[in-house]
Amino acid sequence: MFDKFDLDKSLEKSEYDSVIDGLRERLGVLQREFRDKKIPVILVFEGWRFSGISNTINRLTYALDPRGYRVHSTQQPNEIERAHPMLWRFWLNTPSQGQIAIFDRSWYTDTLLKYSDAGKKVPLSSHALSDIITMEEQLANDGVVIIKFFLHVSKKEQKKRLKKFQDQHKEFSEDDSRAPKRMRDYDAMQPVLERLLSETSIENAPWTVVEGNDRRYAIVKVYETIISRMEGALDSRADLATQKPAKKSSNAAKSQNAERSILQTFDLTKSLSEEEYAPRLLVCEKRLHELQYIIHTKKIPVTILFEGCDAAGKGGAIIRIDRALNPRCSVVEPIAAPTPDEKSHHYLWRFIRNLPKAGDITIFDRTWYGRVLVERVEGFCTETEWQRAYKEINSLEDYLVRSGGILMKFWLQIDQNTQLKRFNERENDVLKKYKITDEDWRNRKKWDIYSIATDEMIKKTSTPAVPWTIVESNDKYFARIKIMETIVAVLEEAVSSTGKNKKSV
Amino acid sequence: MFDKFDLDKSLEKSEYDSVIDGLRERLGVLQREFRDKKIPVILVFEGWRFSGISNTINRLTYALDPRGYRVHSTQQPNEIERAHPMLWRFWLNTPSQGQIAIFDRSWYTDTLLKYSDAGKKVPLSSHALSDIITMEEQLANDGVVIIKFFLHVSKKEQKKRLKKFQDQHKEFSEDDSRAPKRMRDYDAMQPVLERLLSETSIENAPWTVVEGNDRRYAIVKVYETIISRMEGALDSRADLATQKPAKKSSNAAKSQNAERSILQTFDLTKSLSEEEYAPRLLVCEKRLHELQYIIHTKKIPVTILFEGCDAAGKGGAIIRIDRALNPRCSVVEPIAAPTPDEKSHHYLWRFIRNLPKAGDITIFDRTWYGRVLVERVEGFCTETEWQRAYKEINSLEDYLVRSGGILMKFWLQIDQNTQLKRFNERENDVLKKYKITDEDWRNRKKWDIYSIATDEMIKKTSTPAVPWTIVESNDKYFARIKIMETIVAVLEEAVSSTGKNKKSV
Repeated sequence: MFDKFDLDKSLEKSEYDSVIDGLRERLGVLQREFRDKKIPVILVFEGWRFSGISNTINRLTYALDPRGYRVHSTQQPNEIERAHPMLWRFWLNTPSQGQIAIFDRSWYTDTLLKYSDAGKKVPLSSHALSDIITMEEQLANDGVVIIKFFLHVSKKEQKKRLKKFQDQHKEFSEDDSRAPKRMRDYDAMQPVLERLLSETSIENAPWTVVEGNDRRYAIVKVYETIISRMEGALDSRADLATQKPAKKSSNAAKSQNAERSILQTFDLTKSLSEEEYAPRLLVCEKRLHELQYIIHTKKIPVTILFEGCDAAGKGGAIIRIDRALNPRCSVVEPIAAPTPDEKSHHYLWRFIRNLPKAGDITIFDRTWYGRVLVERVEGFCTETEWQRAYKEINSLEDYLVRSGGILMKFWLQIDQNTQLKRFNERENDVLKKYKITDEDWRNRKKWDIYSIATDEMIKKTSTPAVPWTIVESNDKYFARIKIMETIVAVLEEAVSSTGKNKKSV
Repeated sequence: MFDKFDLDKSLEKSEYDSVIDGLRERLGVLQREFRDKKIPVILVFEGWRFSGISNTINRLTYALDPRGYRVHSTQQPNEIERAHPMLWRFWLNTPSQGQIAIFDRSWYTDTLLKYSDAGKKVPLSSHALSDIITMEEQLANDGVVIIKFFLHVSKKEQKKRLKKFQDQHKEFSEDDSRAPKRMRDYDAMQPVLERLLSETSIENAPWTVVEGNDRRYAIVKVYETIISRMEGALDSRADLATQKPAKKSSNAAKSQNAERSILQTFDLTKSLSEEEYAPRLLVCEKRLHELQYIIHTKKIPVTILFEGCDAAGKGGAIIRIDRALNPRCSVVEPIAAPTPDEKSHHYLWRFIRNLPKAGDITIFDRTWYGRVLVERVEGFCTETEWQRAYKEINSLEDYLVRSGGILMKFWLQIDQNTQLKRFNERENDVLKKYKITDEDWRNRKKWDIYSIATDEMIKKTSTPAVPWTIVESNDKYFARIKIMETIVAVLEEAVSSTGKNKKSV
């Protein structure tokens, strides 16, 4: 592939001077237009070692209003980053609406490093590539314009620049060691890079290889590519705007209910007496506490997701788990309506930010499944968006599990009468009054629509790796014990099977 | 001091059982009331090693809605935290309005560790104590209720618990090593702790020493203290609410102008021709680039603050600096109106979060001085609040400098005619149109009030360690060169004086 590029391409200084001001102004105007239209942009810069990435980014940012972009240079991951799956730190740096995130090396370098460190003969697993593609597609689907550059220089040019660098910067030579050493090993890397670039050049995020022997030529090509992609994105937005998205998607929700609901197959009347409950809870608490230590020592990240009907008892169940855990390495994340900052990112962003690091336990009280529940039912997102979410969520959960994490998800189901009884109780309880709002009463009227959404969610996202646990919750004792015993069982299995704890991603 | 506490105090199980449920319910109700009233709470737990901090916190959180509190356990600082001044990571974890932040060991343990690591004979400098007091006072003044506990056990009891722990937890023994080892060295630590506690027991954040030999007694005392402090805080709020704060403080602003304005002493007509400007800029850019490398290698954090009249040329000046810098270790932080999350913290929080780590350069486009400028003039805060801010800001800047950082602050001043000319130009410029809003025209009418606020700010916050640089900015060339040459000069001095780069805090 690389041999198809003519590295002799160059620009005279006079040619360069005659075009560069126009390009800068055009890019500056586009940046402002993107800000007004709230379109986020990701620019990825990869390339051979000494291909001039830093210089190119510097020239590029000349044109940009500093309030609208941020350069993320991909250094060695820090402690916290190392304790999360590889892509985590990049997710955190995805741009909010209207912002430009410039990656000076990226998940591609990390992927190459990881596999060249592992000393594998074929350094790229298809999982690694599909994880990248999934992330980029999710972002692109959410409206992020992704533009990726590979700066290509010849072996000879690279050698020349290395020599020059070493002569000039004896004291700083360590400073450029972020690029994998193998990126200098031209012949060995060439086939690996060719595969990487061709397999990850997807429709929404294609690679542009930039002939980089001549810096002026490279900079102009980068400018022109960005401008053309940004203009293209504006055009396709304009096209989209003519098609009005359906605001409420409740019709779509209703139409799905041909088969029998999964939820109806559960016996909600299951119960436990207090005499059965108390000792079983105690056993669970004790064992959970011990298991947490082992999990912590083995550095396994554990994520526990809770969804359920209003007043199904999520809070009460979570408190019981939380009490058994050492707060030094566990946290409950209550999920409310997104803040403006959260709203201006991909909907998964606020959850990914708060995922546990290795050895910690995070309990989410409401989760990313809000996308296919409340957001679907209330029309906070389009049908295309929530339909897409099933796959997006499955991919994310799959990624977390393959990265060595444990995921559990609980759906707490009650019937309508139980809900009514609990709502009334809450109104009269000094400690629980705050839990009941007008919104809860409004949601109650949408019981059937929510049931349809729940049913579809459970069918589409109960995967072998991360199945839903449906918790019959009319009786709180029964529900809490089922949850606690499930968590203990899953953790027991995880700590006993050593193979499962290995990071495979 | 410690000998005044009777460690034989204890509670029978029956007594404990008869009070604990009532205490839990009361605390639960108070938590909800604090949430509704948006009052943040900080609970600090310190104590001898094996004094039962973890267990006490666990018992305490029984009573709390997990959505309203977070436990921060103070582990060894991570890489990023180590690259900031000590108090930085605690600032980040201050609670937002209505939330409770529980610190399982805190800045006190860090302070003790730091000085016992340093092997000093008197392990507490008065700077270390006054930095802590300053932080706590700033938070308390902002409405945070701070409740600090020291769990006190006898030497004998400590020994007993250590033995028990070692027997039970052979595999996890390393896990409790967060407490300084000297915290076990009872006799040596006692005078140090006594001094620490007595000097930091300030009016708004007094220490409560808890007799901890008997766990039941300790837990009840902790509950009762928290409840009494929280109830007290509610009462004093109620008192405050009867005194209406003056919403607009413009009168107060006007009354300050007896002396001649500092700003009037500057000659705004100073200028440079393009022929003078271009080569001097080039020299600065080149040297700044080199200095950045040295700064980076020496791991000095550099903060550059920009304030000035609207259209004074802050953006243009910042772009010139930014161009000279390697984006791998520099960033521009544009400050807009605070987000809801930022609003629900101390006004310094959002700036502190974004301070540079050691070796990085952060340029703030507008700063914490907003408190005494726009917030004062527009009445976004009370007069008490902005009057207090001068000292708060001076303390923060002083702390950053003593922690080994470099701070520079620039005020860009233009006259009213120049501003009018630039506003009109902006309206007609495709790249600058977005910079001018109705608000700018409104602010222009408040020129005199802003001048008074600026004048007072410069007088009160130009300290020997961090003086303001007033930049005569009617001529952009002159202004940019003055800024660039000042930055270069300050950095030159910093890298040449080795003593100055040492961390002294």
